[in-house]
Amino acid sequence: MRVGGRDTHAAWWSDDGVHYLDQRTIPATVTVGVARTVEDVAQAIEDMAVRGAPLIGVVAAYGLALAARRGDDLEVAFQRLLRTRPTAINLLRGLEAVRAVAPDPARMLEAARAHDRAEVAAAEAIGEHGLALLRCGSRVMTHCNAGWLAVQDWGTALAPIYRAARAGLAPFVYVSETRPRLQGARLTAWELGQEGIDHALIADGAAAHLLQRGQVDLVITGADRIARNGDAANKVGTYAKALAAKAHGIPFYIAAPLTTVDRATPTGADIPIEERSPDELLSAEGLDEAGEVRRVRLAPAGTPALNPAFDVTPHALITALITEVGVVPATGEGIAEAFQRAAGSPEAI
Amino acid sequence: MRVGGRDTHAAWWSDDGVHYLDQRTIPATVTVGVARTVEDVAQAIEDMAVRGAPLIGVVAAYGLALAARRGDDLEVAFQRLLRTRPTAINLLRGLEAVRAVAPDPARMLEAARAHDRAEVAAAEAIGEHGLALLRCGSRVMTHCNAGWLAVQDWGTALAPIYRAARAGLAPFVYVSETRPRLQGARLTAWELGQEGIDHALIADGAAAHLLQRGQVDLVITGADRIARNGDAANKVGTYAKALAAKAHGIPFYIAAPLTTVDRATPTGADIPIEERSPDELLSAEGLDEAGEVRRVRLAPAGTPALNPAFDVTPHALITALITEVGVVPATGEGIAEAFQRAAGSPEAI
Repeated sequence: MRVGGRDTHAAWWSDDGVHYLDQRTIPATVTVGVARTVEDVAQAIEDMAVRGAPLIGVVAAYGLALAARRGDDLEVAFQRLLRTRPTAINLLRGLEAVRAVAPDPARMLEAARAHDRAEVAAAEAIGEHGLALLRCGSRVMTHCNAGWLAVQDWGTALAPIYRAARAGLAPFVYVSETRPRLQGARLTAWELGQEGIDHALIADGAAAHLLQRGQVDLVITGADRIARNGDAANKVGTYAKALAAKAHGIPFYIAAPLTTVDRATPTGADIPIEERSPDELLSAEGLDEAGEVRRVRLAPAGTPALNPAFDVTPHALITALITEVGVVPATGEGIAEAFQRAAGSPEAI
Repeated sequence: MRVGGRDTHAAWWSDDGVHYLDQRTIPATVTVGVARTVEDVAQAIEDMAVRGAPLIGVVAAYGLALAARRGDDLEVAFQRLLRTRPTAINLLRGLEAVRAVAPDPARMLEAARAHDRAEVAAAEAIGEHGLALLRCGSRVMTHCNAGWLAVQDWGTALAPIYRAARAGLAPFVYVSETRPRLQGARLTAWELGQEGIDHALIADGAAAHLLQRGQVDLVITGADRIARNGDAANKVGTYAKALAAKAHGIPFYIAAPLTTVDRATPTGADIPIEERSPDELLSAEGLDEAGEVRRVRLAPAGTPALNPAFDVTPHALITALITEVGVVPATGEGIAEAFQRAAGSPEAI
């Protein structure tokens, strides 16, 4: 994707470390962070300077390659990176891909690069398969950011939309702002603006109203972990949209690469849900009148808050999964079939 | 209710005009606004310096009495006040109560005071009837602010909670923050904090997750207009909670006085839904590190936004209505019965 006319990745390897667009400062400014140690990488993930399930898998993979080059204890590095965030299974996938060829640093770096390329290829294929679900002028609702900031180059939920826009289908996107971190308002609105795709920001609470009023043709979100039975954990607020879509007969899709599917997790109830700091909810950050970034407190001082970062959408509410091997039912059978297809394809992950 | 140890109303008449707590500055500061003309009153309602369906009815009633005392054209004043906000029917109720005794200024003021007293009495009765729905330690979820800032002295949705707290039942309240205006984070959290009632703030998108996980015993919200068939318009984000409550078998109640019921509106689809400025969504206001109130922009400059202020919950999702004449089914029959009971009672509105 292009930022200010230049082709840009969300994260990339360079000889001085792992580079990434700092997603905490977008849209105010686009700055590049550099993680030179495993601890730097871990903190960038924990602080959500890099975020998005596939992207944190890629960045963690590069982080483990970095550990190898620096001569760090690889198991310590692996565990440090793995415990940064509990919900997205892609984190484990990226780390495992690199550990599988340990301890040679060059081979580990190549494995990280291969994992990165595979995620890009998967996202591109998700875009192709998802494109078939869109019509001219389709009105798509999404939640959080599952665009190219979350997954190199294409994204997951937004990949079909980028494809559709380039195919001249003129999609329209309802962007749910996604409190408390506002990934919709800050990141998805910014991505779509950069690509010139028509969109409207909405409050998370307004999604059900728009679905009820027939203003949405389909919902597509990403996922952080999909259980073996098709239940999907994604950014908190997703489940409410799935319930409303079901109530009004509107298709609800989860777009995700197979690296997001965790066949070791039987159901959604078994997915660990990250609890983040109440501070995220008690305040918001943005630009003041003078263009300075400021954090303002919204609620009374000392207000207790609960901040679960994800929720689980039961598979019965998911019309289908959009994966790199095609659109498959969100069921145990559908997932098994997807992995069979992937095993039979030369680019299988 | 008490603020800083002093008994305080949300709005009151005084010889120099209509006084009100300015709800735009709470919790940062508690300031009293004074509306000395009909235009002042209208702007206080439009800007949401005063808000909450019953309260705007009361304030509009005083506004029309003010018009009479000033010798304004009463029909012009009536229409100006009526068009401040389209969804809450209480606005019309308050205005009609005062217009019914026009043009004598003293009688009109007395009618406004009577309307105010009747709303307080209704809210108190709602608290009594709603109390029967709570148990020791009940975990209640609410949305927006339907407390004493929205309805003199008691509130609607919060009235049973205030009663329960005084009865020693130790209720716990999940406060949905209610983007974009954050009435939950700013006002409900503040009210509950002042009363020492245990609560936790949550993102609007987290409500369905908590309902799914069995952390909530019942949901109670207010309403801005209830149609003849029991469909209820309330602050946007309410409908998603009702859907999730239904999905998990958790009771969902609407607490509202009969002034909120509009028997001239057949169904929820006939209730006008106010669209407010996109600016409310693109920014948030709070206190910076220095304790100064600041507005910060959250989304990229120029981001288009849609900002419906209300949504409609179909009556099939509403377990019951908590009214001043008792807990009644959210159906045409239930509503007809409630009005019959009210007609048979000496304090009928």
